[in-house]
Amino acid sequence: MTAEIVAVGSEMLTAGRLDTNSLFITEHLNSLGIEVTAKHVIGDDNGRLVTAIRRALADADILILSGGLGPTEDDLTRDAVAEALGCQMLADAETLHAIEQRFRTMKREMPAINRRQAMVLEGAEILRNDKGTAPGQWRVVDEKSGKVVVMLPGPPSELKSMFTRECLPRLAAIAPPTAIHTAVLRVTGISESQLDQTIAPIYLNRANLATTVLAHDGDLQVRFRAQCATLDAAIALTEEVAARAAEALGEHVYSRLDEPLEVVIGNRLAAANSTLVVAESATGGGLAQRITGVAGSSAYFIGGYVTYSKKMKTDVLGVPAALLEEFGAVSKETAQAMAEGARLAARADWAISITGNAGPSTDGSEAPVGTVYIGVAGPGNPIEITVTHRMWPVNDRGRVRAFAVQSALDLLNRRLIAHGLLSA
Amino acid sequence: MTAEIVAVGSEMLTAGRLDTNSLFITEHLNSLGIEVTAKHVIGDDNGRLVTAIRRALADADILILSGGLGPTEDDLTRDAVAEALGCQMLADAETLHAIEQRFRTMKREMPAINRRQAMVLEGAEILRNDKGTAPGQWRVVDEKSGKVVVMLPGPPSELKSMFTRECLPRLAAIAPPTAIHTAVLRVTGISESQLDQTIAPIYLNRANLATTVLAHDGDLQVRFRAQCATLDAAIALTEEVAARAAEALGEHVYSRLDEPLEVVIGNRLAAANSTLVVAESATGGGLAQRITGVAGSSAYFIGGYVTYSKKMKTDVLGVPAALLEEFGAVSKETAQAMAEGARLAARADWAISITGNAGPSTDGSEAPVGTVYIGVAGPGNPIEITVTHRMWPVNDRGRVRAFAVQSALDLLNRRLIAHGLLSA
Repeated sequence: MTAEIVAVGSEMLTAGRLDTNSLFITEHLNSLGIEVTAKHVIGDDNGRLVTAIRRALADADILILSGGLGPTEDDLTRDAVAEALGCQMLADAETLHAIEQRFRTMKREMPAINRRQAMVLEGAEILRNDKGTAPGQWRVVDEKSGKVVVMLPGPPSELKSMFTRECLPRLAAIAPPTAIHTAVLRVTGISESQLDQTIAPIYLNRANLATTVLAHDGDLQVRFRAQCATLDAAIALTEEVAARAAEALGEHVYSRLDEPLEVVIGNRLAAANSTLVVAESATGGGLAQRITGVAGSSAYFIGGYVTYSKKMKTDVLGVPAALLEEFGAVSKETAQAMAEGARLAARADWAISITGNAGPSTDGSEAPVGTVYIGVAGPGNPIEITVTHRMWPVNDRGRVRAFAVQSALDLLNRRLIAHGLLSA
Repeated sequence: MTAEIVAVGSEMLTAGRLDTNSLFITEHLNSLGIEVTAKHVIGDDNGRLVTAIRRALADADILILSGGLGPTEDDLTRDAVAEALGCQMLADAETLHAIEQRFRTMKREMPAINRRQAMVLEGAEILRNDKGTAPGQWRVVDEKSGKVVVMLPGPPSELKSMFTRECLPRLAAIAPPTAIHTAVLRVTGISESQLDQTIAPIYLNRANLATTVLAHDGDLQVRFRAQCATLDAAIALTEEVAARAAEALGEHVYSRLDEPLEVVIGNRLAAANSTLVVAESATGGGLAQRITGVAGSSAYFIGGYVTYSKKMKTDVLGVPAALLEEFGAVSKETAQAMAEGARLAARADWAISITGNAGPSTDGSEAPVGTVYIGVAGPGNPIEITVTHRMWPVNDRGRVRAFAVQSALDLLNRRLIAHGLLSA
C-alpha cells in the first residue's frame, strides 16, 4: 500500500519554510506498513492543485493533503479536491454549529468567511479538530479502487492531534496486516556522531529493522522499528537491539520509556516528595519554562528566579556584590552562589543555577560567547553543590541557550540518580 | 518564469529527513524573479522519476533536480532525465579524466562504478563539482520552448557551491528583467480570519502582487511581495498596499520593520531608559525567555520571578495569603498583586504579571483551563495597574502558554505606546 503527501500553501514554497508535517505523517504511515512514494509542495493555485491531486491519486492508494483548510480566499484545498473528484460540497450543520460555538466562547463575532470551513465533500467523513477551527475530511474516492483522500489542517499541533485521533484508526483498518514494534532510547550528554559510532555496529544490516536518530539541541532520540510477520517477532527484534544499544550507551540513556528529560526528573522528584527551584540568567526563563511544560509540575517545582541583572542576583539570591565584582557574573563562583542562594530563598531540596554568555557580543569583562556555568545544589549537611563548566562554540544565541537548558537538566538528573531518586 | 524543484532519493522520503537544498535554491531563484511553483520528493524508482520529470517540464520553465548523481545502482537521475527527454547519453572524456584525477589525488583506485558519473546527456553543459565527484548538468530541453533541466548533486555543500558558481550566471542570463520588493506588517491582537477579512479587499486581484499571511500562536505576519519591471514600481506597489492595510488594521500593527514584538518593546524601553520586570506562574518562564531572546535585553530587563507556588507568590511578591485564599491564584486580584509586587521588589518602571490555568486538568478551586489574567503595572503616582482577562478554549498546554505570552507582550506594548514611549 502506497501513499503520497501534498503540503498546500504558497508560504510553503518560500525560502524560509519546510513541510515538517510530512515527517510526522511518514513515521506513522510507515508504522502501519504503508510506504510513502512521493511528497509534494503546491502553492495556492487552484489549477496546479487540482492537477497535483489527480496525479497523486492516479499513482498512489492514499493521498494525504495538509493545509489550505483555513477560512481565507487562498485556502483552496476543499475546492480543489471537489473539482479533482468531480463531486459536490455541502455545508455541514454540525461543523458550522461547532465553529459558531467556538467564536461564542471567545466572545467574538464569527466572520462570515469562516462559514467556508464548514463545507464538506459529499460522502466525506468529518475529522474533528480539537485544537483549532478547521475540520479535516476523509473521503473514499470510489468503492472499487478503495483509494482515499485525506484533508488535514496545516498547523502542526492541529494536524498531529487530528491525525493521531481520527486518521490512525481508519488507516489501520485499511492497511495490510503486518506487525510493527518500536523501541525508543532517549539519550543525552554525547554528540550525534559519537552515538552513531557507538551503536551502528549493533543496528546495521539487521533485516526488518529501521533505525532513526533524531537530534535536537543536545537531546537524542534513537528509534528502532521492526516490521515483522508477527508481533512477537517484532518485539523480540527491537528489544534485543535496544537492550544492546542501551548497554553500549550506558549512563547517557535517560529514558527507555520515550519520556522527555524534564518528565523523568519530575517523576524522580515527585516520587521522593522533593522540591526544586531554579535560578537562571543566560537562559532567561528557558529552564523554568521547560520544567513547567510538564503538567503537574507544581507538585515539585516551587518556582524560578530569572536574575538577569547583577542587582537581582544580589538582592534576591544573596550573591555577594564583591563576589560578582571579583569573579564576574559568568563564573564558577557565581553559579555556586546562585544555586546556594536559590535553594535557601525558596527552602527547596534541590536547586539548579545557570549563568553564561549566550552572545552574540562579549563585553570586555565577560567570559567568551558560548561559556556557561551550571550549578546543582542538593540536600545534605553540609550542602553539596557541584558546578560544571560548558562551552558551546556556536555563535547562535538561541542554540547556546537551548544547549545550556538541556545540559542543566542532564546534570540534575545524574545527581538525582546518584542520590538514589528513582523514576516512578 | 517558473521553476519546479525535485529532490531525488528514497532516503529523502524517510521520517527523519527533509529536503533543505530546496530552500537555498528557492531563495536564489526568487532573487532572480523566478517563481517556484512546486517542489517534489521522489524515491529511487525509475518509472516514478521519469513521470515526475515529464510532468514538471510540462508545467514549469525550469526543472532543477538534486541528488541521484552518485555512482551506485540506485542513482537514477541521469538515466531518468535521458529517458524523459528521449535523448542519448555519452561518456564525456574530460569528466572521466577529472574523476580519475580526483581518485589519484586521494591516492585511491577508482571503482569501475564511478564511470557512470561521467555519462552526460547529449547536448548538455557540464557543471563542475569542486566539492565532490558527481558533476552536474545543464540541458536546454529544446530551443523553441527554451525550457531547461538542471541536475545537481545531493550533498548540500556540493550543491551550493555548484549552484552559485555554475547555475546562477546561466539563470541570470535567461531570467526576465525584473525587480522584487517586499513589505511586511507584523500584527497581533486579532485572529487570522479577522485580519484576512479586513485586508483581503486591499490585496486581492492586484497584478504583480503576492500576499501571504503567517500565523503563529497569536502572532501574524503579512508579507506583500511585488514583482515588477522596475524596482521603483515594485516599491510603489508594496508600499501603497502595505500603507492601506496598516491603516485598516490600526493599532493591531505593531511593526512595519519586520521586527518581533519583543524587539519593538525592547526598543521602546531602551530609548526611554526604562526598566522591566516580569512575574509569571502559568507561563513558567516563557515570558522572561522571550524577552531575553533579544540580544542586549539586559539593558532594560531586570529579571523575572517564576512564582509557581502560592508560597513563592507571597514570599517573593508579597501577594497576601488571604487574597490568594479568597480569590484563588488564577484571578484578577492575584494578577494585580503580582504585577504590583514584582515592580516594587525589583524597583522597575514597568512590570508584567501572568497567572492562569494552562491545563490539562482543573483542580476544584481553580478557573477553567485556558483562563489567563495578565497585569501590567506602569510608572506614575498612584501606580497604574491594568488587568486583562483572556480565555483560549484550546486544550493544549503549550498553546495556552504561548498565547498568554504573546498577549502579555501585546498588552505591555499598547501601554508603552499610550504612555508615549517610542520605538527607536
